[in-house]
Amino acid sequence: MKIVVVGSVAFDNVETPFGKVENVLGGSATFFSVAASFFAPVSVVAVVGSDFPKSELEFLRSRGVDIEGIEIAPGRTFRWTGRYHEDMNLRDTLDLQLNVFADFQPKVPASYRDAEICFLSTIHPSLQKSVLAQVSGAELVGADTMTHWIEGTRDELVELLGAVEVLTVNDEEARLLAGERNVVQAARKILALGPKSVLIKRGEYGVLHFSGDSVFAVPAFPLEQVFDPTGAGDVFAGGFIGALAKAGEFSAATVRRAIVYGSVMASFVVEDFSLNRLRRLTNDDVERRYRQFVALTEF
Amino acid sequence: MKIVVVGSVAFDNVETPFGKVENVLGGSATFFSVAASFFAPVSVVAVVGSDFPKSELEFLRSRGVDIEGIEIAPGRTFRWTGRYHEDMNLRDTLDLQLNVFADFQPKVPASYRDAEICFLSTIHPSLQKSVLAQVSGAELVGADTMTHWIEGTRDELVELLGAVEVLTVNDEEARLLAGERNVVQAARKILALGPKSVLIKRGEYGVLHFSGDSVFAVPAFPLEQVFDPTGAGDVFAGGFIGALAKAGEFSAATVRRAIVYGSVMASFVVEDFSLNRLRRLTNDDVERRYRQFVALTEF
Repeated sequence: MKIVVVGSVAFDNVETPFGKVENVLGGSATFFSVAASFFAPVSVVAVVGSDFPKSELEFLRSRGVDIEGIEIAPGRTFRWTGRYHEDMNLRDTLDLQLNVFADFQPKVPASYRDAEICFLSTIHPSLQKSVLAQVSGAELVGADTMTHWIEGTRDELVELLGAVEVLTVNDEEARLLAGERNVVQAARKILALGPKSVLIKRGEYGVLHFSGDSVFAVPAFPLEQVFDPTGAGDVFAGGFIGALAKAGEFSAATVRRAIVYGSVMASFVVEDFSLNRLRRLTNDDVERRYRQFVALTEF
Repeated sequence: MKIVVVGSVAFDNVETPFGKVENVLGGSATFFSVAASFFAPVSVVAVVGSDFPKSELEFLRSRGVDIEGIEIAPGRTFRWTGRYHEDMNLRDTLDLQLNVFADFQPKVPASYRDAEICFLSTIHPSLQKSVLAQVSGAELVGADTMTHWIEGTRDELVELLGAVEVLTVNDEEARLLAGERNVVQAARKILALGPKSVLIKRGEYGVLHFSGDSVFAVPAFPLEQVFDPTGAGDVFAGGFIGALAKAGEFSAATVRRAIVYGSVMASFVVEDFSLNRLRRLTNDDVERRYRQFVALTEF
């Protein structure tokens, strides 16, 4: 199956307890699409500025990512500057420059419209909705969101949720969206808003998946060093959706395996800054760590 | 196999976001032994004051717990008063009265000394050591500890660790003991101190088990309501050690299943104050939730 993803393509400045990088490739659609590309064809809808290097577009193309839908607009690319605490579950956004992203009006190329899966990374819910309207034949719609949209555009977000099969959020977003501290009750309330399933990303503590009466829990892969958590959630989603697309069906067993593949991909990206680990990742690495996940969890 | 456990038998005053109880049964040896009693014979070494109600001793006896080693000393029983935050991963100790526990010199009855398994709940490491010396034929020694002993009696604790097969600690204790923030590296450093394996209890995020090159991760059972986390770690240890004793061997597969049984028991005790949930728990309940753990984690 073919995937269309909409989201940001950005430059990041990141500081973690282990180092500091500037002007590195980032953005939700970038992390998502590169992770998904290990499993299935993926097409990106995004906008970059005229400062965006051809070499990075070439990198995406080299991963088989369809970049026809990446608009190059006059001006500068979206930039995010963040610093992680010693406890890397916490981070501060030091600077955010929307630049060309401020006027982003996603246009889905005609060649994308037969995609079976549509993933809406965290952008304004009305933009997510406009992309969905342009990929109207999608059999599976996934969406991500964040605190900013939950607080600022709740009505539009809730309206979108009615059209979404799987929502991915972190603990904090789940609690905020549901107005409920307990994560199980929060998940139930989110499901009542429309999504058929919700994936709650808990960083180093793994993922919970709620769907009907079924609950699935996967721990995160225990790593000796987490270098940079940036993009882990997007990479999780990319691996998850990619594995579903590769399987070509969405049975409960496939969904569970896809969640593990998402966790596998997320466990790699945090091992280095930006997408550096994914740039040198092989399919063999992915399969090896999947087997390590089996060994980690089986009893 | 028979288990000997040493630790506290206490009265707790507990306040959580869901309510408040006073003078309820608590203490590490109590929680441990009641949980273990669902699986195997367990004998307690502890001290209570003359104020300790016979009905609670009767309750332990009704669970098949051998209480010959519970000394009744003149004075008052150990009392702990604590309050949990809205985020129940956090709690404050409001009051601590050691009472008869201050002069506790554990005496292991002769009838206990053939126990195959010895579990040393969190008391002064020199007392843990003295109990171990009295159960010298034990094939498996488990120990728990806490921040207070790691900070105040590190040398004695490290000496004890050389004689311990399995250490149970929470995240914070693991980090403090190892002087290392990353939980995987912390576990490696703790193993280098002597224990053959270390179990890191992460509350609502489950458990990690490190043994040689093997890592095992179990999520906590996702609960709609956590009523009172008090004793969850001790109950986890009791269920884990109990299941090992019942199996009568310590193969890697048995250890993993025992960790799941520990998690099962912990998931019950937090559903009510004190040991209330365990008082009305049946073996069928335990087996049913074990199967739910399988369904929760299999892929």
